[in-house]
Amino acid sequence: MEFTEILGLVAGTLTSAASVPQIVKTTKQKKAAGISPFMFIVLLTGNALWVYYGFRRSDIPIIATNVVALALDTTMLALKWKYN
Amino acid sequence: MEFTEILGLVAGTLTSAASVPQIVKTTKQKKAAGISPFMFIVLLTGNALWVYYGFRRSDIPIIATNVVALALDTTMLALKWKYN
Repeated sequence: MEFTEILGLVAGTLTSAASVPQIVKTTKQKKAAGISPFMFIVLLTGNALWVYYGFRRSDIPIIATNVVALALDTTMLALKWKYN
Repeated sequence: MEFTEILGLVAGTLTSAASVPQIVKTTKQKKAAGISPFMFIVLLTGNALWVYYGFRRSDIPIIATNVVALALDTTMLALKWKYN
């Protein structure tokens, strides 16, 4: 794997990991009042378009990062409905 | 501008826009207790690496999106310190 690809995977891991604390906090506190579902739908749409963009560019780091981000966003939306 | 580039810019606009409500809310409520600065530093690092990745790939949508994201993250961190 070449340097640029590793760089992209590290960048993607960091930007995806940054949303994990919010998910952990929501699960622990069983509270999701402060989270706007509209924001997560915007985020989901954006991440889905990035996955499509990644396929058009055959860019593994973009595809991998945004598939993970999609899963995290979907988890967050599910928590929002569960604890709303 | 070809379709793929437009697709990337739209995706980037959505994923960056998704963090704006949090900034507006923090500014209005003048409260930033619930926000972990560690998360924003992880996000900042990730976005900075994505900018570098974008340059290595000469990928305008990735560069543009992550420069905007960097600005939004920095704003959020500044609000965190101001209203902490």
